[in-house]
Amino acid sequence: MDFKQFIRTIPDHPKPGILFRDVTTLMANAEALKHAIDAMAAPFRAQKIDQVAGIDARGFILGGALSVELGAGFTALRKPGKLPWQTYREEYELEYGTDELHMHTDAIKPGDKVLLVDDLIATGGTAGAGLNLLQRAEADVIAAVFLVDLPDLGGANRLRQQGVDVHSLMEFEGH
Amino acid sequence: MDFKQFIRTIPDHPKPGILFRDVTTLMANAEALKHAIDAMAAPFRAQKIDQVAGIDARGFILGGALSVELGAGFTALRKPGKLPWQTYREEYELEYGTDELHMHTDAIKPGDKVLLVDDLIATGGTAGAGLNLLQRAEADVIAAVFLVDLPDLGGANRLRQQGVDVHSLMEFEGH
Repeated sequence: MDFKQFIRTIPDHPKPGILFRDVTTLMANAEALKHAIDAMAAPFRAQKIDQVAGIDARGFILGGALSVELGAGFTALRKPGKLPWQTYREEYELEYGTDELHMHTDAIKPGDKVLLVDDLIATGGTAGAGLNLLQRAEADVIAAVFLVDLPDLGGANRLRQQGVDVHSLMEFEGH
Repeated sequence: MDFKQFIRTIPDHPKPGILFRDVTTLMANAEALKHAIDAMAAPFRAQKIDQVAGIDARGFILGGALSVELGAGFTALRKPGKLPWQTYREEYELEYGTDELHMHTDAIKPGDKVLLVDDLIATGGTAGAGLNLLQRAEADVIAAVFLVDLPDLGGANRLRQQGVDVHSLMEFEGH
């Protein structure tokens, strides 16, 4: 399936010069969503994935579906103040300032086979923080999986340099 | 399956006197998550659901899984500033002040059969705003579906008074 045709590109959003890749139009299409989840799950069907860790918030949509598809549990990687129990926290850089990602300390057991999931990887700041959270819990991170990769921004390669397998269904040039 | 055993209750969170019902522990359990999605989907398998509309952010986890389970698309109902395209907006009351929920104006076609999904219904403020968004798009709202209902807070009954069928997998007394 040509997944790119389902992505809406919004010029100059959120600021001039940026081509925003809107994945909501793919998710709203039942056929495209089903095929995308099938394709994201396919490389991992042969092994037992314990947890799918989805990044707040679009990674939750894909991660929830992938969890059920692969017979795994779901772990939420969330913005500060959203998880009610004890958390690990990781800070990461934004263009201006920093943000944090949190994960419940009891969400992942040491040695759990985990997939990290989000809708899009750009510079990889958020995904890198997610990877750090999973590694603090001593997860066995099998791969990071995305709908969209913007390879010119280098995030996927940065994750690979940290030793993680990275998969995506499509790439767009530029940013 | 006794779903209640998978919910973690956190006393005095987020403030004294509140028993917080933490659904992340159910979602982290692969068996419980799979059974919960099966049970949430079961009443709707016989009809063609077009869209599952999930509420930001825990409703995304369940809604993503339900979309694929039912062969539907996924529509995101989000906090302000999160959707990149033109949106409908609905304001709703919080304990102190108000908040807003947004939906892309082209997410739902008139007559689409839609399920509204979130993890928990309490007073029903957010779900009511979601329902209003769907009705502005002229959706045929088949039901609102939740993991947890807190019936003492009256939200499920308020939705029923608006003519919507409401389903939940478990109820807890109090708030």
